[in-house]
Amino acid sequence: MVESLRARQRRRTSPTMRILLTGGAGFIGSHLCDRLLADGHSVIAMDNLITGSSENIAHLTGQEGFRFVFHNVADYINMPEPMDAVLHFASPASPSQTAPTGYLQLPIQTLKAGALGTLNALGVAKKHTAIFMLASTSEVYGDPLEHPQRETYWGNVDPVGPRSVYDEAKRFAEALTMAYHRTHGVDTRIARIFNTYGPRMALDDGRVVPNFIGQALRNAALTVYGDGAQTRSFCYVDDLVEGLMQMLHYRESAPVNLGNPHEVTILEFAQIINRLTGNTAGAVFEDGRTPGDPQQRQPDVSRAEERLAWKPQVRLELGLQRTITFFKEKLAASA
Amino acid sequence: MVESLRARQRRRTSPTMRILLTGGAGFIGSHLCDRLLADGHSVIAMDNLITGSSENIAHLTGQEGFRFVFHNVADYINMPEPMDAVLHFASPASPSQTAPTGYLQLPIQTLKAGALGTLNALGVAKKHTAIFMLASTSEVYGDPLEHPQRETYWGNVDPVGPRSVYDEAKRFAEALTMAYHRTHGVDTRIARIFNTYGPRMALDDGRVVPNFIGQALRNAALTVYGDGAQTRSFCYVDDLVEGLMQMLHYRESAPVNLGNPHEVTILEFAQIINRLTGNTAGAVFEDGRTPGDPQQRQPDVSRAEERLAWKPQVRLELGLQRTITFFKEKLAASA
Repeated sequence: MVESLRARQRRRTSPTMRILLTGGAGFIGSHLCDRLLADGHSVIAMDNLITGSSENIAHLTGQEGFRFVFHNVADYINMPEPMDAVLHFASPASPSQTAPTGYLQLPIQTLKAGALGTLNALGVAKKHTAIFMLASTSEVYGDPLEHPQRETYWGNVDPVGPRSVYDEAKRFAEALTMAYHRTHGVDTRIARIFNTYGPRMALDDGRVVPNFIGQALRNAALTVYGDGAQTRSFCYVDDLVEGLMQMLHYRESAPVNLGNPHEVTILEFAQIINRLTGNTAGAVFEDGRTPGDPQQRQPDVSRAEERLAWKPQVRLELGLQRTITFFKEKLAASA
Repeated sequence: MVESLRARQRRRTSPTMRILLTGGAGFIGSHLCDRLLADGHSVIAMDNLITGSSENIAHLTGQEGFRFVFHNVADYINMPEPMDAVLHFASPASPSQTAPTGYLQLPIQTLKAGALGTLNALGVAKKHTAIFMLASTSEVYGDPLEHPQRETYWGNVDPVGPRSVYDEAKRFAEALTMAYHRTHGVDTRIARIFNTYGPRMALDDGRVVPNFIGQALRNAALTVYGDGAQTRSFCYVDDLVEGLMQMLHYRESAPVNLGNPHEVTILEFAQIINRLTGNTAGAVFEDGRTPGDPQQRQPDVSRAEERLAWKPQVRLELGLQRTITFFKEKLAASA
């Protein structure tokens, strides 16, 4: 991606950092690891591998500046070494009702990763006067009544619904992050991450991208829940990581949406994947959306554009092609 | 208060219980202590006295069945003795911007009481297969867009605003309570408590009732923030405690609003207090409402009426008269 002048100027001012990254073996976390190391930072990737996978970081083993620590962020983090930044990305994140790694199957772990995990990670940042970044989520907007969602929208979340284990945990994590910023002066960032896809998503993750690609590569009809008219916007993981890097280097405690505003219906999305994979089995429609599953979700990214000179660059077809290649190789390797 | 037939029937089926009550030295907690002891239960009142006061429970010292434990609920609760019910009432609760016990002055403690405190209290309930009751709040509705508020309303809360330390902590606590109910089968209750007033409120609590009464008893003009047109509904503490007792004896995991639907404007309220105290200094208007302070707040209590045969009985003037008497005696004693 072509880097903007502003971004380059900011980058120059940032020295090499020592970074604690929780959830470092996760889908997004592992890509962030790659980028941080490529930019010359050193990274401690912390993960308990409940939803993350050691496969995602296997290629980093032994690389200079990289260290993996097996640890549950809900437990106290003992970190005597100085850190320059703490990036808290550890959490189950799939809303799937059936995937073993979905937050509906890990409700209390999810609540703890959001509350205790954020508290522990903030504690490290406070102790070492480090930058703290929270990986928050578009799910803080719940089933939004405003469209597209700006950061000023307060959201529409059922606090006692099944999905509240994730949504309320992240809302709590945001509140706690702001409290540490206001009370202790911790230099915090809140990234509200929208749907992201790319290589290293788990095939059994249960979300629509691996579901559809997995089915398409088996030449099966893609399962569409509901009528397929619900829309999503998908951000390629490299775009997201670029946005996260910009956030890391830009002092801004207010939440910033990171996502791709390009909106497609689930049905259109299924058709694209069938086309890219040459799958002719079409789609089947099923009931069974999770209560609280939003009908529409689309980021307003003008804050990121204005303050970070960031916007997504990777077109959906290109990102999907790369993701399909990854899944093909993965399936071939396991065959 | 005259007890309904249904309520009496439920009561008869309930044996004497051993109860852990966190926040037992607080305003509501201490009244609940009194009632639980009067009904023959034994009570361990747990409090760290940050916002609660030992004065509130001084009259219970040495009473059979009562024990006070000095403890911060954010720390692990070691409770080897069997418990029949755990009532989690510990939290700062005043939205005052200036009161030393307001949650805006205790932001991280408030977040911890809601998250860690609820987790620890739920842990005790799970261990002993006890009933768990969460003292939640009308603040989960935030600045409501629905009026009056029913339990099905999802609320309008700014997750990163200053008040989120309380609102999001309580929303998180509700989500965690439901997760323990759904995952571990804990027999849970969620009471969404609206504005409550009565004896034992702290004079420096910063909320409108002690503020107004304190000013009126000093023959000062009552300070009204904004234009006074914002409405509140005030529930007398005895009514609330009766509702909580009904909830304790009725198996219902869905949240239940407890409050008085009788709505008055803040200006009307000031006039009533001036009349009852004989204060002729009137009111003065000032700017300075907290961001996120709701314009209107009124419970829909039809769920409590239908399921618990409960509704508030004490008229505002009567409750205020009792509260004024309490504050008069308190001021006289300290003079």
